[in-house]
Amino acid sequence: MTSPEPESEPDAKPGPPGSPAGRAPEAADLVITGCTALVHDERERIGFVEDATIVVRGGRIATITGGSADPRAAGPAGPADPAGPADLAAAEHIDARGQVAMPGLVNCHTHTPMVTLRGIAEDLPIDEWFNAFVWPIESNLQDRDIELGARLACAEMIRGGVTCFADHYFSMDIVAAVTAESGLRANLGQAYFSSQGAEGRERSLDFALRHRDTADGRITTSLAPHAPYTVDDADLAATARLAREHGLLVHIHAAENRDQTEASLARHGRTPIEVLAAAGLLDTDLLIAHGTGIVERDLPVLARATGRIGVAGAPRGYLKFAWPTTTPVRELRALGIPVGLATDGAASNNSLDVWESMALTALAQKFTEADPRWLTSRQALHHATLQSARAVGLGERIGSLAPGRRADIVLVDLSGPHTQPVHDLAATLVHSARSGDVRTTIVDGRILMRDRELLTLDVPAVVREMNARMPALIERSHGKRIQTYETGT
Amino acid sequence: MTSPEPESEPDAKPGPPGSPAGRAPEAADLVITGCTALVHDERERIGFVEDATIVVRGGRIATITGGSADPRAAGPAGPADPAGPADLAAAEHIDARGQVAMPGLVNCHTHTPMVTLRGIAEDLPIDEWFNAFVWPIESNLQDRDIELGARLACAEMIRGGVTCFADHYFSMDIVAAVTAESGLRANLGQAYFSSQGAEGRERSLDFALRHRDTADGRITTSLAPHAPYTVDDADLAATARLAREHGLLVHIHAAENRDQTEASLARHGRTPIEVLAAAGLLDTDLLIAHGTGIVERDLPVLARATGRIGVAGAPRGYLKFAWPTTTPVRELRALGIPVGLATDGAASNNSLDVWESMALTALAQKFTEADPRWLTSRQALHHATLQSARAVGLGERIGSLAPGRRADIVLVDLSGPHTQPVHDLAATLVHSARSGDVRTTIVDGRILMRDRELLTLDVPAVVREMNARMPALIERSHGKRIQTYETGT
Repeated sequence: MTSPEPESEPDAKPGPPGSPAGRAPEAADLVITGCTALVHDERERIGFVEDATIVVRGGRIATITGGSADPRAAGPAGPADPAGPADLAAAEHIDARGQVAMPGLVNCHTHTPMVTLRGIAEDLPIDEWFNAFVWPIESNLQDRDIELGARLACAEMIRGGVTCFADHYFSMDIVAAVTAESGLRANLGQAYFSSQGAEGRERSLDFALRHRDTADGRITTSLAPHAPYTVDDADLAATARLAREHGLLVHIHAAENRDQTEASLARHGRTPIEVLAAAGLLDTDLLIAHGTGIVERDLPVLARATGRIGVAGAPRGYLKFAWPTTTPVRELRALGIPVGLATDGAASNNSLDVWESMALTALAQKFTEADPRWLTSRQALHHATLQSARAVGLGERIGSLAPGRRADIVLVDLSGPHTQPVHDLAATLVHSARSGDVRTTIVDGRILMRDRELLTLDVPAVVREMNARMPALIERSHGKRIQTYETGT
Repeated sequence: MTSPEPESEPDAKPGPPGSPAGRAPEAADLVITGCTALVHDERERIGFVEDATIVVRGGRIATITGGSADPRAAGPAGPADPAGPADLAAAEHIDARGQVAMPGLVNCHTHTPMVTLRGIAEDLPIDEWFNAFVWPIESNLQDRDIELGARLACAEMIRGGVTCFADHYFSMDIVAAVTAESGLRANLGQAYFSSQGAEGRERSLDFALRHRDTADGRITTSLAPHAPYTVDDADLAATARLAREHGLLVHIHAAENRDQTEASLARHGRTPIEVLAAAGLLDTDLLIAHGTGIVERDLPVLARATGRIGVAGAPRGYLKFAWPTTTPVRELRALGIPVGLATDGAASNNSLDVWESMALTALAQKFTEADPRWLTSRQALHHATLQSARAVGLGERIGSLAPGRRADIVLVDLSGPHTQPVHDLAATLVHSARSGDVRTTIVDGRILMRDRELLTLDVPAVVREMNARMPALIERSHGKRIQTYETGT
């Protein structure tokens, strides 16, 4: 593929571990001691370093060193350059005994402002959910609603151990400002439909170019066509050209469910994945949301992709909408395609709880594959870490605790009765721990939540104003809607 | 049916609401103010009373009164006899503004001491899970292991908003003592296999008679044959006779999965449910654990039951074991059979989180019925409240917040960003709230957890001792096991 390396960072120069960017070692910003650290070995197998010390400098992990553990498990830096007394004196220090340090979770597909609609359209099939509730109400959205929703969503994610999210929505300038304010990392894309004419696509590109690598590099961007059933072939092809020209990720809903695939076949003779391929989108870096409608004939098409393809799975919504299939993780993994964890918006998922997505991915996969040995806890943690990072185009920056990676770290408290005793720490994390067990959330070395206290956002103020605005927002008597959903057209 | 009314209480004399047992109104023990209370109307539809005051006297709910709400929604007592200044002065007072009061959750089928094995046998089919791990390790269990496990389990349940559980295990004298100490309510049964000879059944009866209505009435008891594949027809028939003679509930695993049903048909020409019917167990009050192997031909058999039948569903484990079906809730409801929520033991479920069981019941039902309109949030809450209470034989004592019911109440904090805004409170409770949002847990009017602080159990002490005992407990080199699982035999 010809696109520039989207994972390169303007300020990233190679240097020896422990001295990022080749400069002389500077004082640590943050030192975390006494935790058990989740690490990946050279074959990406998940292991745990006991009594670990994590030193953060310049927003990156400088070193991870273990107490009595095999130093090889701590990654290439091994025991070199641990925190010295000077570090501990200069830096912010977290005593994390009894806690597990792991890479922050990544919400690989969401629509943050939709938290405002949490619970507004329940127990409905997707067409009625869209046409009777979501799209009429979205026609009322004002900038302030977007802002309050994004703020509440960021607060929820920080409290749930999410350090990065991929957002696909409207008025994304506002979401970018909230992201910057919240301290989170995000890949943001301005959504568009072909019904908006060329202007939709142009605004999506303009947004992506203006915001890429902003917020100290925490914001990356995508082009965000809504879906093959709302964006026509010409627009999809133009999007693929723009993505290649500008080295941008494309983030799109596709093959969301089996009905869409069947309707696409009936109408065009092609599956949604074949539509993407024909448009050239499989030769760009592409994040496909959902993909539960990916079928057998799509697999060779995906195998021929020259772009880096990722899929975001949000299994809770598939169960709730009673879709007959879930994301075909086994087939996608056989092709080497990463499957990241996601929640979709809170209007369908009722929360932005990626921790729950991790557990439900394991459970839904075991059930649909009829195989209890498939999707083990360690596999689930691999999806939650490196695969999620790759799906959102950040596979070199985040997704593991290793020297040189950005310091996006969550500390999980396992002292509760529901997480004791620990026979298998991977199982404890996936199947017993809950998002509420995250005590501390760190992005780029900055603490966004400490001991459950949010440090960058004021939830009560957001909720008060949101509730005051609600009557106007949920009014549907005007009969307008921003789109009409017809199964798979 | 001829058995005595198991829901009658020795000390329960009818009296007007607000003056239990016909005595003059006594001072309140506990007054909860400012909450939103989940109530059931005369057709058992779930509603919410805003700005409610709940007055507790003698361990029972005396009154529930609403601020501006329709007083009929508050139940038969309506606005009569609200808390007066004398009550507020005399009683313990909880200011529960911003919180929802609801009936405590009931874990309708668990094995509390198995929390000790949480995470020890992961990602395995059930035969290997039983034969290679659970049954060999259970042959090592000492009384102290049972005690520590039960204590940890009670702590986990209190923290998760569970106020009552149905336990089916060994050494239940110890579990009864821990239940009394914890303050929880429970229905307890001493499990037995036919491999123990007549002694197993006799000990189960002895336990049930010695412990019924102990711990101030909080403990009720069952006869607890393990399952039709480990207890023979003669023992099942003898159990049915004893249950009728002594007015006891029978608690049994049956038709746990489809394989068991098919193996039973192949071996005996009868399904597990038909085996229970032939033994006379459907003419006793019966709690069936799991029932995912209940098939079409079982439905008329269940329809002819003269006992009160309940089923406990623990959907997480079915997904994790990759069983092809889940409890057939729709068919059971059509027969009027209550389906209660359960977790099974933590060795399969990884937690005793009934809140999660509530959400997963909704999700698994929608998916398996291919119907997003089925198992709404209000249905899920009905399973969590009245149906769960009935399944464990306590349908008249607990399961709703109404005058005369035992004061088993949990207060749920909805101020977190993940539970705001609230468009549909039932959906917020089922799909957005988590067990960790329970702030306060009350049984019989006694506060067992207040603002997340456990008041009756010391978790760190339990965990320390449990971990010290672990090497001896999990030793499997002796080659012993308490049973052998062969699919469905």
